[in-house]
Amino acid sequence: MQDSEYLTMPRRKVGVVGHTGYSGAELVRVLRRHPHVEPVLIDLRSPEHRSGPALTRFSWSPEALAEHKLSLLFLATPPELSIELAPVALGHGMKVVDLSGAFRLQTVENYRRWYGAEHTRPDLLAEAAYGLPEFCRNQISHARLVANPGCYPTAANLALKPLLEAGIIDRTSGVVCDAKSGVSGAGKKPTAKTHFCEVAQNFSAYSVLDHRHVPEVLLTSGLLESEFSFTAQLLPVYRGILETIYFRANRPLDAASIEAIYRERYAREPFVQLFSNGAMPSLHSVAHTNLCALGVKADPATRRVVVVSTLDNLVKGAAGQAVQNMNLLLGLKETEGLE
Amino acid sequence: MQDSEYLTMPRRKVGVVGHTGYSGAELVRVLRRHPHVEPVLIDLRSPEHRSGPALTRFSWSPEALAEHKLSLLFLATPPELSIELAPVALGHGMKVVDLSGAFRLQTVENYRRWYGAEHTRPDLLAEAAYGLPEFCRNQISHARLVANPGCYPTAANLALKPLLEAGIIDRTSGVVCDAKSGVSGAGKKPTAKTHFCEVAQNFSAYSVLDHRHVPEVLLTSGLLESEFSFTAQLLPVYRGILETIYFRANRPLDAASIEAIYRERYAREPFVQLFSNGAMPSLHSVAHTNLCALGVKADPATRRVVVVSTLDNLVKGAAGQAVQNMNLLLGLKETEGLE
Amino acid sequence: MQDSEYLTMPRRKVGVVGHTGYSGAELVRVLRRHPHVEPVLIDLRSPEHRSGPALTRFSWSPEALAEHKLSLLFLATPPELSIELAPVALGHGMKVVDLSGAFRLQTVENYRRWYGAEHTRPDLLAEAAYGLPEFCRNQISHARLVANPGCYPTAANLALKPLLEAGIIDRTSGVVCDAKSGVSGAGKKPTAKTHFCEVAQNFSAYSVLDHRHVPEVLLTSGLLESEFSFTAQLLPVYRGILETIYFRANRPLDAASIEAIYRERYAREPFVQLFSNGAMPSLHSVAHTNLCALGVKADPATRRVVVVSTLDNLVKGAAGQAVQNMNLLLGLKETEGLE
Amino acid sequence: MQDSEYLTMPRRKVGVVGHTGYSGAELVRVLRRHPHVEPVLIDLRSPEHRSGPALTRFSWSPEALAEHKLSLLFLATPPELSIELAPVALGHGMKVVDLSGAFRLQTVENYRRWYGAEHTRPDLLAEAAYGLPEFCRNQISHARLVANPGCYPTAANLALKPLLEAGIIDRTSGVVCDAKSGVSGAGKKPTAKTHFCEVAQNFSAYSVLDHRHVPEVLLTSGLLESEFSFTAQLLPVYRGILETIYFRANRPLDAASIEAIYRERYAREPFVQLFSNGAMPSLHSVAHTNLCALGVKADPATRRVVVVSTLDNLVKGAAGQAVQNMNLLLGLKETEGLE
Repeated sequence: MQDSEYLTMPRRKVGVVGHTGYSGAELVRVLRRHPHVEPVLIDLRSPEHRSGPALTRFSWSPEALAEHKLSLLFLATPPELSIELAPVALGHGMKVVDLSGAFRLQTVENYRRWYGAEHTRPDLLAEAAYGLPEFCRNQISHARLVANPGCYPTAANLALKPLLEAGIIDRTSGVVCDAKSGVSGAGKKPTAKTHFCEVAQNFSAYSVLDHRHVPEVLLTSGLLESEFSFTAQLLPVYRGILETIYFRANRPLDAASIEAIYRERYAREPFVQLFSNGAMPSLHSVAHTNLCALGVKADPATRRVVVVSTLDNLVKGAAGQAVQNMNLLLGLKETEGLE
Repeated sequence: MQDSEYLTMPRRKVGVVGHTGYSGAELVRVLRRHPHVEPVLIDLRSPEHRSGPALTRFSWSPEALAEHKLSLLFLATPPELSIELAPVALGHGMKVVDLSGAFRLQTVENYRRWYGAEHTRPDLLAEAAYGLPEFCRNQISHARLVANPGCYPTAANLALKPLLEAGIIDRTSGVVCDAKSGVSGAGKKPTAKTHFCEVAQNFSAYSVLDHRHVPEVLLTSGLLESEFSFTAQLLPVYRGILETIYFRANRPLDAASIEAIYRERYAREPFVQLFSNGAMPSLHSVAHTNLCALGVKADPATRRVVVVSTLDNLVKGAAGQAVQNMNLLLGLKETEGLE
Repeated sequence: MQDSEYLTMPRRKVGVVGHTGYSGAELVRVLRRHPHVEPVLIDLRSPEHRSGPALTRFSWSPEALAEHKLSLLFLATPPELSIELAPVALGHGMKVVDLSGAFRLQTVENYRRWYGAEHTRPDLLAEAAYGLPEFCRNQISHARLVANPGCYPTAANLALKPLLEAGIIDRTSGVVCDAKSGVSGAGKKPTAKTHFCEVAQNFSAYSVLDHRHVPEVLLTSGLLESEFSFTAQLLPVYRGILETIYFRANRPLDAASIEAIYRERYAREPFVQLFSNGAMPSLHSVAHTNLCALGVKADPATRRVVVVSTLDNLVKGAAGQAVQNMNLLLGLKETEGLE
Repeated sequence: MQDSEYLTMPRRKVGVVGHTGYSGAELVRVLRRHPHVEPVLIDLRSPEHRSGPALTRFSWSPEALAEHKLSLLFLATPPELSIELAPVALGHGMKVVDLSGAFRLQTVENYRRWYGAEHTRPDLLAEAAYGLPEFCRNQISHARLVANPGCYPTAANLALKPLLEAGIIDRTSGVVCDAKSGVSGAGKKPTAKTHFCEVAQNFSAYSVLDHRHVPEVLLTSGLLESEFSFTAQLLPVYRGILETIYFRANRPLDAASIEAIYRERYAREPFVQLFSNGAMPSLHSVAHTNLCALGVKADPATRRVVVVSTLDNLVKGAAGQAVQNMNLLLGLKETEGLE
């Protein structure tokens, strides 16, 4: 396609199911600024109030789906619902990006253990591409169905995988990932745990060692469960994830050497940002962007290394990465609508 | 002393230098509720506004110090100032509880490395008792000068020391302590880092691997620097510290077995609270109390263990522990004024 | 009673229904520090988890109520429940302090209009004393049933009533009360409005002009509805109420003259604190105390006056004032347990 | 200009002095998304760290200013500095948008009273257009120098002016404007008042009745000082202003009638949004947008009216409105870069 054709091609319609949740709403915001697609809102039930942005909107039915000629469908729905809806959309020839955990874990055994339910579409579970473009770009481009990664695994894998590939981590000593997330990661449904009075001026750990995002890290990074300790914790902020990752290097390495590994691996990656010289990114560094930012500190004498990895859980951890995947699936520029 | 004598003994005067800072002000609050002492405010310079609680107050001078017949002096001052003031008070026969890092590190070498200055009173540095009553009660009771521990080390040592004594930690794999603190820990002086707009909705790491509280953990716990990775991080809350501590057990242990170690060690300790059955304490669990709360999660199969240790940095991490030490120094009930 | 008798009299048992809500839990905290009463927890249903403080606890029944020989019952329950429970307790000879709006509005007409329901005990509605000690101390002391005031009306009436009594407010120009409350005022039940993500970094008005606390201000202050504009607003804080009150003086008055009115009226009131010389109290001024703090600004030339009134909605606005009322009902020192 | 010319015209360079402050940094963010201008950073001193966005950057000097051929200069500087810099830029033929209060008050008398200093350029003070496009569009379009309005006056004037023009406000009873602002409005300089620990979980009034933004409201709305009571208050949020405005209507009016006045007046205004049927906007309604949102509640029987007006203090209250003014000054579409 020539540049002029690219610029003038008609907007393609993409549907969003689950657009009232935090990730879904963020997705609609990102898509509205995208020059080459037109977001269409799809309701699973008749909504009580049709408030919200002035966009094409219809209620879910296979007929309506066919009629609206969508190129792609985003599912920002719970996993059990995604398993129901994805096949319908695929059956109508659409591409699907699913933001839930429904299709991330490759096998029914994994799904049973971590999601506590039988997976009814093992074929799609096996077929789905894992939507981490920095490591699975080729599979994504050729896929029909993309499992958009979890927020925690995105931050962890972008930090760990280059170092594991470079072979510098002493895996026998274990890797620790101490993860903190803003409250939007817990979803929009009001619960005792998301009540302002419980969260404000507080900080608490949950799902220590057994968070369902752990297997995503293991599957992508190749770490064994015995080598990886993960704790999720709730921060009194709206958005953002920060992971502090600890390991021992298997040889004396200073921070600059480790930064060099990242710099080489991510030289052409538009959405990974490296902080240098001991500077550490914070939540503010990446809020409202599709960036994952990394910072490194290392003590060569004792081989101790600390990596900080941070991203906006609603953008690179959900909606932004979903649009990045959409761009790949639809043959658009990968950064379109994300800068 | 008989009960009736104890109840009716006259209040003893205790001085507070540095009463306008966060720790110092908390100290005054705690002391005002204490039935057996009377806090006296001491100003280093003439204050611009003599606002604040209606208490006896005077400006620092050796003469004034002598005249007011204080039993004990609290120094909530920077370390370089504490080194100057402590000898004066000791010279007048008072006991001293110093809340700074001036007298915590035992040797001039330690002090030089971590505080970047020469210590001018190595004799007092060697003499000072480390004020962690759960482990140094006897020394404290017989001391003239107590170095009140740092907030981070208090949480870390209370979590680690019983397990190290029980010999269950695989030290060769290393211990990780991922620490988070509220902003009052950074002091009252306005800086770019404590500006509301920089802190709110943010989370950031600082002093990664080289925080000056690290040597306090090493000296008390016996861990080697190569075995201990520590990161301090700033939480958008006023008060509270939570540390997530990771290690590998050197044999398969479930959480109940580890809890049993704590339960036995802390059976008679009024200010250590153990959460059971996988429950994890949060900042709210300990806010405004002198408690340090502990929770444990363990996976016997892989020997991974996570301990959460949390306390209020202004109370058990500073003013409350200082009063606990005062009670020991003055022969009062250790819990007086702290429940 | 002589002093020595007072000090040694046995603790009297007082029951708390609704002790898991924010006001009820605060009430239990206050009562536990009170030297002359022993709080007893009463559950309306069998609780799932009997966590919480180690106190006598039983399930509600008229028999259990009789058996435990309570001197007084606190109801921290919704109004419709208070209307049911209060008569039972009164029938057993207990005093009752009700924290709901059930008995505040004097007439069934008022109750119908503002609470949208028929009041089934108009006799008790007429009998109840309004529990604002600074203005109704005598009635409270002789009452069986006290209607503990709402948080907003307490702040408004303490600010307005002395000035209305002094006749300095130009009522024809109207009085504006712009009120802001922390989230604990909205109760513990998780709702879309109390979700952290909706409250944090936000500020919003609700119940503009028609908040059900308005009639409490009118009944106590004597202002007409046409003379009083009230807006309630949700602050992203846990606790605290601040009201900014505007009116025109009916003669040129400076702030000092208005402060003098307050100073005279509240000279012997332990729980009203006056800020002077243009200083204005903030939420921090009164947090965790039973104080209501007042500050005044006035422009004699234009007769414009602004009064800031602030209190802790859970203490002087609920639990603390309830204990103040209890002290009056039981013949204890009014400030007992509240300083 | 034809559409095709408009789309392809070269980007015009616009300078930003004061780009490290909150308003200045927001301005750079907005300008970078603008399709027809290129922001250029100008430093008043050599910066210590040249961090920040990759943009053309130079140090202030009349020569450098001339050399870079800027079309327009934004001054996000303190007023005394703006008074120095604006004439230099105007002398080089540039347009100037000043975000300070230097040129807002028309007369040296006003400036002396509210800013406590002599104005050295009364000619420019008289010449400057007041940059509230909804009411001064024509003057702005023909101006050389635009005084960008204060954040508080923008919200107040957009709420009040249509109603004053419609003559429905009973001015003799007075208008109350209770204003609340996020902390970014207090500037980036760390002070005791902007320390996280002083702001979080707090709320406080400042500049009661004598805020320097008051005269901007009076000059634009035509209200007399005796008719207008204004209190500024600090909210524990990063960004946003919400004003609750109270007045009495001079005839019985319901909310719908008042909304109709707004609807007609603002029918073609892209940046004023009206909430209907008693719905009230909150800070979240307008965060990160150039909108001012209005909501109305009225009681015809008593003629009491409450209007809520809210905007993002950094966008419509500063940087966004400055770009709106720039668009008018440079003949660009007024909404360019702001949607």
